[in-house]
Amino acid sequence: MNYNMIFEKAIDRLHEEGRYRVFIDILRNRGNFPNAKCFAGHNGPKPITVWCSNDYLAMGQHPAVIEAMEAALHDVGAGSGGTRNIGGNTHLHIQLERELADLHGKEGALLFTSGYVSNEATLSTLAKLLPNCIVYSDELNHASMIAGIRNSGCEKRVFRHNDLEHLEELLAADDPEAAKLIAFESVYSMDGDVAPIAAICDLADKYNALTYLDEVHAVGMYGARGGGISERDDCADRVTIIEGTLGKAFGVMGGYITASKTLIDVIRSYAPGFIFTTSLSPVLAAGALASVKHLKASSEEREGQQKAATRLKTMMTQANLPVMESTTHIVPLHIGDPVKAKKISDILLMEYGVYVQPINYPTVPRGTERLRFTPGPHHDELMMTELVKALVEIWGRMAMKLAA
Amino acid sequence: MNYNMIFEKAIDRLHEEGRYRVFIDILRNRGNFPNAKCFAGHNGPKPITVWCSNDYLAMGQHPAVIEAMEAALHDVGAGSGGTRNIGGNTHLHIQLERELADLHGKEGALLFTSGYVSNEATLSTLAKLLPNCIVYSDELNHASMIAGIRNSGCEKRVFRHNDLEHLEELLAADDPEAAKLIAFESVYSMDGDVAPIAAICDLADKYNALTYLDEVHAVGMYGARGGGISERDDCADRVTIIEGTLGKAFGVMGGYITASKTLIDVIRSYAPGFIFTTSLSPVLAAGALASVKHLKASSEEREGQQKAATRLKTMMTQANLPVMESTTHIVPLHIGDPVKAKKISDILLMEYGVYVQPINYPTVPRGTERLRFTPGPHHDELMMTELVKALVEIWGRMAMKLAA
Ligand SMILES: Cc1ncc(COP(=O)(O)O)c(C=O)c1O
Ligand SMILES: Cc1ncc(COP(=O)(O)O)c(C=O)c1O
Repeated sequence: MNYNMIFEKAIDRLHEEGRYRVFIDILRNRGNFPNAKCFAGHNGPKPITVWCSNDYLAMGQHPAVIEAMEAALHDVGAGSGGTRNIGGNTHLHIQLERELADLHGKEGALLFTSGYVSNEATLSTLAKLLPNCIVYSDELNHASMIAGIRNSGCEKRVFRHNDLEHLEELLAADDPEAAKLIAFESVYSMDGDVAPIAAICDLADKYNALTYLDEVHAVGMYGARGGGISERDDCADRVTIIEGTLGKAFGVMGGYITASKTLIDVIRSYAPGFIFTTSLSPVLAAGALASVKHLKASSEEREGQQKAATRLKTMMTQANLPVMESTTHIVPLHIGDPVKAKKISDILLMEYGVYVQPINYPTVPRGTERLRFTPGPHHDELMMTELVKALVEIWGRMAMKLAA
Repeated sequence: MNYNMIFEKAIDRLHEEGRYRVFIDILRNRGNFPNAKCFAGHNGPKPITVWCSNDYLAMGQHPAVIEAMEAALHDVGAGSGGTRNIGGNTHLHIQLERELADLHGKEGALLFTSGYVSNEATLSTLAKLLPNCIVYSDELNHASMIAGIRNSGCEKRVFRHNDLEHLEELLAADDPEAAKLIAFESVYSMDGDVAPIAAICDLADKYNALTYLDEVHAVGMYGARGGGISERDDCADRVTIIEGTLGKAFGVMGGYITASKTLIDVIRSYAPGFIFTTSLSPVLAAGALASVKHLKASSEEREGQQKAATRLKTMMTQANLPVMESTTHIVPLHIGDPVKAKKISDILLMEYGVYVQPINYPTVPRGTERLRFTPGPHHDELMMTELVKALVEIWGRMAMKLAA
């Protein structure tokens, strides 16, 4: 058994497929976002514009968030010092959970160290607790949901993306008495399309299934108070569990679920991924609390983001760039090849100071490799003009087909 | 299928067994730790002394840590805004990984959002990558290691706690050609005993196995630079992977592994729990960096902690309290019953302003329920005297047996 050879071969495979990941070394500058510094050059840090951040609304630099974190840092300290049960439960965690429950109109909420952990811990625990549970999972569900479902060890049916007929077919084929759980997302972050939440809830009612909705790429950004697509579509009360992150539009870090009081108590009491880990730093809890509160009251950031996304899509379309269909704030540009995607991204960074990460397998299916832009309220007209000009130049240089 | 009945029964079971967890609502006061405020009373917050924090060295309130976090908060902002691969890699993450690799004398390090995730993600990925891997796991391993091993789907052998003979028996019984991984901890946090690391490495050499060592309850606290028991025992270079947390002695939040460059690259490239999640907030990375650096150079905190732990053990022993054998900073007091453990903890909090959480199943085996004290450099003689007096009074009140 030559361990090292196995490890080296695993890395070689990635190089061969052109999808070995090189992390670029950046430092965002608070107050200047989406501008940042990049440490990749040979002549010291150079200025760049970030086009692929999931700090969608720039809340990571909002004064209300920074002030709340500073206050908590000085009042409470750096970390919580314990699990939620042993020494690590603070008043800030409790306040934040109340705020999140209210955001989604649910009885309770539960914090996790990340959105990934909230999905993995909740789905694996829930599906294990329900006898002979069958999980119905959208084929494009995020890795964290897939991990949770797999780790539950229960039966799983994968339905075609957003395909209600296929979902119903699968539900109808199973034992009516079996426990059922439908797991899906609201905004699919790599394509920018949206699930038919109400229609899925209709099916759940018809077949007595629970529903689990990942709103990670929608919370803060949709609905009058930032409650996500389920708030916008007025169907949050029909979803059994709504899950979200504090690390994207809310600009901080952490994850959560909201649901009935009993369900929250069950996950709180049984999920190893919740129980056996140091709780969220009170500094992060304070920042997230301020962010959620701010976005409940202010729609300026949401409107700015929608405007920027629409503008960029229009400009790309007019330039005949292969922008993929998206009904949300996400602007994906089709490339279809991992090596080309990486090359374009490299040129953008090195020659134009534009940072956008190539998205390759396994994040998206092979053959659908893309660049994924996330314009926000602070991406202005000039930045967009320069970006589109750069893309058109590179498209020409690489002899790639434009749409027209 | 009545879902609600199932959920309510799951909660009822916990009440019946006396192990339903009620989180107490506290707020630590920076600068005053281990003093804190408790929100549980009816007359507003009241002062308490925390005796069960895993902020072992009070680094969560250290000025160097607070200052570094404040600087990052103002320079960089609240969150990273992305995964390590997509927009969320900052110079602070890279610096912290270098510092951690150096701490353990390894070529590389990799950050995770928590120690839980570092264990789960690394073990599940590693055991899956190695063909037909067999994992040898100490029976008292932490829930996060157990989760990682189970989620890998590979074969598992559980060896009796710290039992070298049993471990060798299991290793010898398996195919010499099979990939093997021995997973264990250095300090077992509920008992305070220590693994024979070098002897386990001897067995690993003999049977060509890799070793995975969780140093979560030792980093920062043992070894001349806080590199853990493997540094103290001078055998860090013999361990394949050393894992640690930034949330306990380092006082912040987050987790990490250190290993060879190739192994780090493999986990970085293949572990879903690393890849598909927002990276650690740069504020936390900055705080952890300052904390690790400080504890590399200063032994004052470590010495203060050891002194406090020795003193408390002596005082409890002299008072004939059933303190369990522990060779480390952890001071467990045997109760052996979940209801009594909770009752004593409640009296301590309500009547004496002493906060120590009862430790019940599944954190420890049934019948070994205990109170677990973690004295640190800031727990003084007066606090200890009052604590021991209170315990003796309660022991008498509840007609519990003292040792003599
Ligand atoms: C759909 C979806 N769910 C969950 C997550 C995980 O959330 P977090 O970054 O807070 O771990 C992500 C991305 O990271 C995601 O895209
Ligand atoms: C032995 C051990 N490993 C790992 C962990 C998880 O570390 P973290 O709290 O950083 O998630 C813990 C406790 O929380 C632990 O006790």
